[in-house]
Amino acid sequence: MALTAAPPVQGKPARLAFVQVAQPGTGDDKARNLEHARDKIAEAVRGGKDGKKPDLVVLPEIFNSPYATGSFRKYAERIGWSPETRDGFDVAQTESESIRLLSEAAKEHGVWLIGGSIPELSADDKVYNSSPIFSPDGKLVAVHRKVHLFDIDIPGGITFKESETLTGGDWQTIVETDFGKIGVGICYDVRFPELAMIAARKGCIAMIYPAAFNTTTGPLHWDLVQRARAVDNQIYVGMCSPARATEGDGYKAWGHSSLFDPMGKTVGQLEEKEDILFVDLDPEVVNKARAGIPVTVQRRFDVYADVSKVDV
Amino acid sequence: MALTAAPPVQGKPARLAFVQVAQPGTGDDKARNLEHARDKIAEAVRGGKDGKKPDLVVLPEIFNSPYATGSFRKYAERIGWSPETRDGFDVAQTESESIRLLSEAAKEHGVWLIGGSIPELSADDKVYNSSPIFSPDGKLVAVHRKVHLFDIDIPGGITFKESETLTGGDWQTIVETDFGKIGVGICYDVRFPELAMIAARKGCIAMIYPAAFNTTTGPLHWDLVQRARAVDNQIYVGMCSPARATEGDGYKAWGHSSLFDPMGKTVGQLEEKEDILFVDLDPEVVNKARAGIPVTVQRRFDVYADVSKVDV
Repeated sequence: MALTAAPPVQGKPARLAFVQVAQPGTGDDKARNLEHARDKIAEAVRGGKDGKKPDLVVLPEIFNSPYATGSFRKYAERIGWSPETRDGFDVAQTESESIRLLSEAAKEHGVWLIGGSIPELSADDKVYNSSPIFSPDGKLVAVHRKVHLFDIDIPGGITFKESETLTGGDWQTIVETDFGKIGVGICYDVRFPELAMIAARKGCIAMIYPAAFNTTTGPLHWDLVQRARAVDNQIYVGMCSPARATEGDGYKAWGHSSLFDPMGKTVGQLEEKEDILFVDLDPEVVNKARAGIPVTVQRRFDVYADVSKVDV
Repeated sequence: MALTAAPPVQGKPARLAFVQVAQPGTGDDKARNLEHARDKIAEAVRGGKDGKKPDLVVLPEIFNSPYATGSFRKYAERIGWSPETRDGFDVAQTESESIRLLSEAAKEHGVWLIGGSIPELSADDKVYNSSPIFSPDGKLVAVHRKVHLFDIDIPGGITFKESETLTGGDWQTIVETDFGKIGVGICYDVRFPELAMIAARKGCIAMIYPAAFNTTTGPLHWDLVQRARAVDNQIYVGMCSPARATEGDGYKAWGHSSLFDPMGKTVGQLEEKEDILFVDLDPEVVNKARAGIPVTVQRRFDVYADVSKVDV
């Protein structure tokens, strides 16, 4: 009574480092935030207790600017990457100092780098919340523009409206690394199941979200939405948060950067202070989950459509 | 800075009763199981501590038969309902004693009844795991045939293969009650996000699953998958389980019948023994969740397809 076998996921074991850097305050200047991120990347590359160098370093959402609608345009930089320039983009041509610094860090340390996210100014003068992704040779291989803007109003909790100053991105982002395909979203994108469903069905071994939940939505849903995406799609799901600001009346990030495995179990999770999470991806854990509960080959696309196969 | 408003969900407050009846053992006869279910429905209708009569009573998965692949065909009954006969189905014509009994119970008590599920023998001699749904006048308004069969093999945990003897259903089930639209799935269906996504997008206020997780998958995922469907779709999600068998070496159901609200909070949850859960649906709780975190109007169907609008 063998079960229908799920095809093995394509990937190799990999070490990830989630760099939970301090959240910039409104008084911070960008140069200081960038230098701090560079220092923390270098610290992450030295490895955790076992000294093992990570294959991929992840920074949190909006790490070079305060997380405030009034700051995004002020801190925004022209990156210049677009899906059309994907194969030919030369980092030397970018106007963005953050992109240059991150590219140099990726190249210097020879690691994959999901550079959290930064405010991006587009050619047509719109501002996006954008995650640049670099290969170990410093190449900017993709930019994910946050598709779903964080507009939220929980009475007695938090009110925030990114769409006051930001525009939502128009594409899904999947990056092919040497340890497997990785899907990238940003924070509020995680509440929309489709991005992870599509990524997993297109062969991703993990979804990684630079993110900044807060002290209202964090305790409610931070773990839940990651575990849901992980178990429904039988992939790894991780979110990298800024550390919680201890001073000022700005945004209070939840922290708790974490990685969950395809069974929904916690691989690792930080607290709210500045710290680095070292965790491992293992394709065999994905394969074992898919063999045990074979939902990936039991979907009934004769009853409902496969969202990963429908063009819009 | 008002947020984009989600349209109000159509529904009225309603009391639900989840009847966590004992799981039939392999030595049980069907007549005894049916009588027991009838008694427990009557008990549920008398209400909980506040004596309030429920609007909807829910029984668990496979309540009239042992949950064992070798028992399904033996216990199966010809129901005769199909989506084509929806409006004209006369319960007096059914060959199924379970359907007659449940119809009488719904009519006698004047309640909506999701009659858990029973093994169904189809006209072409296939066996389905089928949930009959009755209106308060005793009419059989729908039969949901479990779409996704429970084939699972967790080493050191549980192995079960419904597809050895069962066939999967071919349709999605949404019932229009006088307190709102309700989507119905059965147990393993909950692991496939699409049924709940489609139901919610078509106006359902809740997804209800007669279900029987076990002592391996229950602690792993019973709460998680309900909370995920609830929060992603901002609807109520409940699962009604059999009580756990205390004797024999048959299937050990997880119990823990529960209802979760659109923020993922527990409205109510039982333990593993025989009991009845009384819980309330409130459309204003749905509206408040959708106003606070307005994902229902922020989806980006220009980036990915709306699975509820794609015919297959």
